[in-house]
Amino acid sequence: MTQRLSPAQVTALGMGPMGRAIAAAFLAAGHPTTVWNRTAGKADELLARGAVWADSPLAALDAAEVVNVCVIDANAVDAVLDRALAESGRSRLPATTLVNLTSEGPGRTRELAARADGLGVHYLDGSIMTPAAVIGTEATRILYSGPAALFDRHRHTLAALGGAAVHLGDDPGRAASFDVALLNLFWTSIAGLMHSFALAARQNVPATALAPHAQQMAGLVADLLPGLAADIDAGRFSGAESASLTSVTASLDHIVHALEETGVSSAVTRAAKNAVDTAVSAGHGGDSAARLAEFLSRGHTNRGPQAAG
Amino acid sequence: MTQRLSPAQVTALGMGPMGRAIAAAFLAAGHPTTVWNRTAGKADELLARGAVWADSPLAALDAAEVVNVCVIDANAVDAVLDRALAESGRSRLPATTLVNLTSEGPGRTRELAARADGLGVHYLDGSIMTPAAVIGTEATRILYSGPAALFDRHRHTLAALGGAAVHLGDDPGRAASFDVALLNLFWTSIAGLMHSFALAARQNVPATALAPHAQQMAGLVADLLPGLAADIDAGRFSGAESASLTSVTASLDHIVHALEETGVSSAVTRAAKNAVDTAVSAGHGGDSAARLAEFLSRGHTNRGPQAAG
Repeated sequence: MTQRLSPAQVTALGMGPMGRAIAAAFLAAGHPTTVWNRTAGKADELLARGAVWADSPLAALDAAEVVNVCVIDANAVDAVLDRALAESGRSRLPATTLVNLTSEGPGRTRELAARADGLGVHYLDGSIMTPAAVIGTEATRILYSGPAALFDRHRHTLAALGGAAVHLGDDPGRAASFDVALLNLFWTSIAGLMHSFALAARQNVPATALAPHAQQMAGLVADLLPGLAADIDAGRFSGAESASLTSVTASLDHIVHALEETGVSSAVTRAAKNAVDTAVSAGHGGDSAARLAEFLSRGHTNRGPQAAG
Repeated sequence: MTQRLSPAQVTALGMGPMGRAIAAAFLAAGHPTTVWNRTAGKADELLARGAVWADSPLAALDAAEVVNVCVIDANAVDAVLDRALAESGRSRLPATTLVNLTSEGPGRTRELAARADGLGVHYLDGSIMTPAAVIGTEATRILYSGPAALFDRHRHTLAALGGAAVHLGDDPGRAASFDVALLNLFWTSIAGLMHSFALAARQNVPATALAPHAQQMAGLVADLLPGLAADIDAGRFSGAESASLTSVTASLDHIVHALEETGVSSAVTRAAKNAVDTAVSAGHGGDSAARLAEFLSRGHTNRGPQAAG
């Protein structure tokens, strides 16, 4: 490739909050930016700032060297490709680079990468780990996977999204593996937090009174995390210096009881307790929480509520 | 009270990892420390450092102005009181101060406080928010509730446990309300994390490769937490500037799918998804995650797996 002298032409497909943030970041960095969305109207502010509306998915693909897509899931990406194919009347699409920033699991992502490849489209996968509000700022974190040469060719363009861009490897599904694992942590934590706020509310404790302590707790999870990860990779599961799974069960028992006593759903906490109970039943009661990861990775399913009694 | 010139006599009941850490901290701060445990042998190291073994629960209560108890749950505290009563052959116990550092729900804690009161024992409840390893250091955080005057009388003695001691109010169950809410956040987060590590392992991603990103994610929860709490207390549930519950459902859908695809239990994530689904079904799909706390505090139960299909 020759050194590029002017900002690359880019497209942003999908005008949800994240898609709009992506388009806005490219515009702010001086890239000629084409936008498209399944339904019109959501891009008005971007058009006012200089974005160009594409009349169709095919026009959107044709317009740019880097086509960013951020829609609800892989099926929605497939639908965009289907429309572009129907328009073109051919079995190949323009040989552009598709940067798929849609959140999806690793299996579906690999299928999508293979399909794009078959259509003559270069495929790079990206997982955005930060909220839409910070796209374009230093706080942005995006994990990429797919051909390293493709990432290198476009990294300067993708830098418009801001912050840290990490390439994880050639397997197009690798960023998605990280993504689902990290989103699982995020949403189970947020769900747990919302149950905690509800429990507090039922005990006349305002959310803002609990918050500083809850923030310490979330910080504690972050602090303990590298040690737990090192234990898991090293196969160190001794509970001698931390809470044993048996004591975790006792703790979860009284949390479940407190939730039920106050009339807040205990289903999430019960599911967590079932996972721990199953590991304890398998003889790991004296081990630390790190054992749970190893145990779950062996494909054990939790005991159902019927068997739990 | 006259100003105390020498360190108070203290007792530590319960010699699990946390109970031993408590006794060690009092010893290190120069307090004459009596210890007792249901089964012998666990206190050997403490006895070598100057702790005195009590022959019975009654002797342990008699020996000190401040009796710290840290056992598995409220039932175990009751059992200690039962034994002391049986020994004494009376209906009252020594008029000492019982600092109950056992983790338990608010309802049971209030029952225990009332029972102690009836037995002539001064009752203060404490919830330890930090791991045993940091007891006695600046990193310790303990939440107390019960009579303010009682807390003030003993705060100098309790300072031996280190770090921050926060008195939350006269209601003996208040510290436990915070405790269960915070432990619920902690253990649902840890359970989610262990499922994430298991998912990563099945995709050949070592825990230590995921860890720095997971740490950022746990940090993100901590960063978002004060804003979510403020939204909950103010009744601001608009999802316009953050992920709507409808998009959270889509995200949780593909996480569940990825877990099942890789053979890792999806039960915890499914329970979280059910909670979100129930709120969406009730018409809150356009709202932010903050709505979930308000919705759950109204006592809605999650849809069961049968209804979820």
